[in-house]
Amino acid sequence: MGELPGALGTTGSLGLRLGQAILAVSSLLFMCMGVDFYSFTAYCFLITAMGLVVPWSSTLALVDAFSICVKHPVRPPGILSIVIVGDWVLSLLSLAASTSAASVTELLLSSRDPFCMGNMCIRYQLAAAMAFLSWCLLFSSLLFNLWLLPSV
Amino acid sequence: MGELPGALGTTGSLGLRLGQAILAVSSLLFMCMGVDFYSFTAYCFLITAMGLVVPWSSTLALVDAFSICVKHPVRPPGILSIVIVGDWVLSLLSLAASTSAASVTELLLSSRDPFCMGNMCIRYQLAAAMAFLSWCLLFSSLLFNLWLLPSV
Repeated sequence: MGELPGALGTTGSLGLRLGQAILAVSSLLFMCMGVDFYSFTAYCFLITAMGLVVPWSSTLALVDAFSICVKHPVRPPGILSIVIVGDWVLSLLSLAASTSAASVTELLLSSRDPFCMGNMCIRYQLAAAMAFLSWCLLFSSLLFNLWLLPSV
Repeated sequence: MGELPGALGTTGSLGLRLGQAILAVSSLLFMCMGVDFYSFTAYCFLITAMGLVVPWSSTLALVDAFSICVKHPVRPPGILSIVIVGDWVLSLLSLAASTSAASVTELLLSSRDPFCMGNMCIRYQLAAAMAFLSWCLLFSSLLFNLWLLPSV
């Protein structure tokens, strides 16, 4: 414990994972408040990506919490590589999804689409922003674990 | 030479860099055929990202070609880290730009926007596809160089 803050099994990692899960859940909530999201591919992509981030980050937060409880990082052989690959794939997905959703929302807002009546698109902007912040935290986790990899 | 195909200074790397530069140039060409691209933020972002990939990949292709000519990989200390950071930043930018441009084009096509008259949007779809392929090659270069890093 305490070797590299943010690496798997540390308090920093627990904070990052909880942040990812909370941001992904809030992005999903902002997105699902409007029932029309499924008419846009970019929004469906965002829902899918965030729907994958929530269970992934929650599971790893549980692993971190268990590591903190037993006061020793729980890292079975090979698990770090799996975590790195998972983080990498999910970070690419969430980056692509958040930028797509943001650019589609910006286009809808600028073209004064009737879909954007009643501040609907501000919710979608918030959802994209939350997804982007979730990507930032996922990317931090990835970098910390990647840094730890050669020493394991 | 020949230790890891695709790492800086090898024939594989030269191929990857040339591929990235050619795909980025073709994406720029497809995008600039229409003069109205600057009215969409996502298209301006794509132009910026591809405009950065072209000089970066061309320079590294020259380094690779020089390494192949002198039959020894040219890798001054610290240069590999700079190449990895540059590849990483550009790969994130090009992924975000290509997915944004693709989703905006898809929205314009599905809403039968007057902007898409005369197969204009098919060019933008092709530009986004070329940028995505360029991202695939950038990501391969990044992985090869990252794999090489601990052994340098």
